Amino acid sequence: MPPEVIHLGEKFAAFSDHWNPRIVGDYNGNEMRVVKFKGTFTWHSHAESDELFIPVSGTMKMEFRDGMRELAPGDVLLVPRGTEHRSVAEQECSALVFIHEGEPNTGAQPSAYTRPKLDRI
Amino acid sequence: MPPEVIHLGEKFAAFSDHWNPRIVGDYNGNEMRVVKFKGTFTWHSHAESDELFIPVSGTMKMEFRDGMRELAPGDVLLVPRGTEHRSVAEQECSALVFIHEGEPNTGAQPSAYTRPKLDRI
Repeated sequence: MPPEVIHLGEKFAAFSDHWNPRIVGDYNGNEMRVVKFKGTFTWHSHAESDELFIPVSGTMKMEFRDGMRELAPGDVLLVPRGTEHRSVAEQECSALVFIHEGEPNTGAQPSAYTRPKLDRI
Repeated sequence: MPPEVIHLGEKFAAFSDHWNPRIVGDYNGNEMRVVKFKGTFTWHSHAESDELFIPVSGTMKMEFRDGMRELAPGDVLLVPRGTEHRSVAEQECSALVFIHEGEPNTGAQPSAYTRPKLDRI
């Protein structure tokens, strides 16, 4: 059988909680995760992995120590490894996130938002 | 300055030719490429890299030796390394494609569609 298509709408319909990534696939040593953002995350960085954000619905902001970026569907933002950042979403935003396999969602800065074990959906 | 947002609409507006990927960013040793598909590509595989297809506008099909998948915006398709495939698009389809840095677009099977040196836009 050929590889299955990942239908993001079905994946996002399968959960409603915020800041709790689910893994939907694997790509060259990275995990493809789906996440719903709402509110303000905690500052963190990933020492060994770039992180990619692709909003699918809603808008979000990414705060950096030296500025802020706004993201909407049709945009892609790469956060280079080692760069402190935190996500902010005034309204719910659903996004695809790529990061190295097993990398904690809060990187090297554990917080109440850390999800040590991610489900696969 | 914080990292720049990649606006895919601007990237796709910057070129019109088919089967000629442009690099728009780098992610953990992979290139993020934008491509416009129209017609039928050549059969090929990538021995050492998974390949990820994320349609942004239009629809496309991915043919495999054992079947076919259809893709539209909101879908993601991972083609595992070593898997023969070819893209087909009856109407133009614009897509984001991820693959290892430097990997030829036709993998180990050069054809008239091979683009040895990709531009960055």
